Amino acid sequence: MKFIERLRLAWMAQQSLLCVGLDPDPAKLPRHLAGAKHPIFAFGRAIVDATADLVCAFKPQIAYYAAARAEDQLEMTIAHIRRHHPTIPVILDAKRGDVGSTAQMYAQEAFERYQADAVTVNPYLGFDSLAPFLEYADKGVIVLCRTSNPGARDLQDLAIGGRTLYQLVAEKAVREWNANANVLLVVGATYPQELGEIRAIVGDMPILVPGVGAQGGDVAAVLANGATADGTGLVISSSRAVLYAGSGGDYAQAARAAALKLRDEINASRKVR
Amino acid sequence: MKFIERLRLAWMAQQSLLCVGLDPDPAKLPRHLAGAKHPIFAFGRAIVDATADLVCAFKPQIAYYAAARAEDQLEMTIAHIRRHHPTIPVILDAKRGDVGSTAQMYAQEAFERYQADAVTVNPYLGFDSLAPFLEYADKGVIVLCRTSNPGARDLQDLAIGGRTLYQLVAEKAVREWNANANVLLVVGATYPQELGEIRAIVGDMPILVPGVGAQGGDVAAVLANGATADGTGLVISSSRAVLYAGSGGDYAQAARAAALKLRDEINASRKVR
Repeated sequence: MKFIERLRLAWMAQQSLLCVGLDPDPAKLPRHLAGAKHPIFAFGRAIVDATADLVCAFKPQIAYYAAARAEDQLEMTIAHIRRHHPTIPVILDAKRGDVGSTAQMYAQEAFERYQADAVTVNPYLGFDSLAPFLEYADKGVIVLCRTSNPGARDLQDLAIGGRTLYQLVAEKAVREWNANANVLLVVGATYPQELGEIRAIVGDMPILVPGVGAQGGDVAAVLANGATADGTGLVISSSRAVLYAGSGGDYAQAARAAALKLRDEINASRKVR
Repeated sequence: MKFIERLRLAWMAQQSLLCVGLDPDPAKLPRHLAGAKHPIFAFGRAIVDATADLVCAFKPQIAYYAAARAEDQLEMTIAHIRRHHPTIPVILDAKRGDVGSTAQMYAQEAFERYQADAVTVNPYLGFDSLAPFLEYADKGVIVLCRTSNPGARDLQDLAIGGRTLYQLVAEKAVREWNANANVLLVVGATYPQELGEIRAIVGDMPILVPGVGAQGGDVAAVLANGATADGTGLVISSSRAVLYAGSGGDYAQAARAAALKLRDEINASRKVR
């Protein structure tokens, strides 16, 4: 099944547009996990199991595992999701981008080694840097468009013949890069107006929206500007606000409570037009 | 010592602008290494030891190690260079780019876990995505500007108020991002004219130039357009043309011969103005 179909099924079956991002910062893990053999995996597994019925996707961020020399625990985390929550797609947040021969290796890393269902990629190197990912027709390729950070404006907002660079990336994504119908975009929740502009360009293409929660994005504005006519089209990702909702022995329950609140807040803002 | 000083010392002491890129594709390794416990490390070590007196830097490409589940062999390779060839800087080619909190983790991966002297980064997310790298003042931060691949033109050549996006990245690199004097740029050898434009913008800032060899970049044109007045300023990287010059038991000698030829070809084109 193609990634976008899997995602649509998850939206429907779970009645949720929420994605929980797994950014396991070793400095923030609950203290009682310190003695565990695989503390990052133990943390991720507990978060996953506590929130799986509330989400449409999980999004592990590879940098946190790589900094901690814990690629094995990333493998274990994704394998756990695939075995115990097989209907929930896994987005590997890696933001890869390189020339073709190297991009091929990164695609292998994401889709074969880690068995991710989708991966985030950076468009700065152009089409041939995306092609090795796009050729995995059943996998999702989620292209950075307008990111959630303040510096996003440095390049992405530059004006090119009356349009911005991020609008042009959205146009290329929908018109030139989507032959396998497996492209999605990343647009930060912190920029709802830009999200609306991009939605107008890309039709029903799903959009991954990080930046609610710790980064301050407004849920109602995200839904109003980014949802498709059927009230879906968005994968709204929260990491820190869910992961670190609690820090004691009840951290998983605290994460569940935070995820439940956010899912409900999102659903309350969904309007099927 | 700051990275750029280390690089200048290597240019002088080695009388070389050549960088050997370590892109160890498991499918191309010499067959007799197949039984080794750490074949990718054994290959990289042999290449490093055979070429260390000919180069100003080594540039391992992390994607090849990650695809092969061989981060440990990347650690071993860099540790080997640092121990046995301590004057040769190590550039980790990773092309990272993410929001600040995640970029912090990627900086930790490159500089603390792998102990690289410099890392390549992608500018699409803007200044705050680069800042966590730039704060390591003694490390080099090598920003993608005009890459060597055909798709580079898709975004990097777009016209913004009479300039191109890559020119604007070069301007930001030299004027806004270089407070710690640790920024370098990546410009592909396959685009010597663009290299000349960028050199005019950035003064003496060192430029990493991949794309000679297998990608077809012309050495004389690279030197004519990219060198600084003292005949340096460039880190000219070749990977496949050196690594896979031979495939039998003499692969390291074949790599040395290819590196020697390329170093001499570069030196023959250097003109101190």
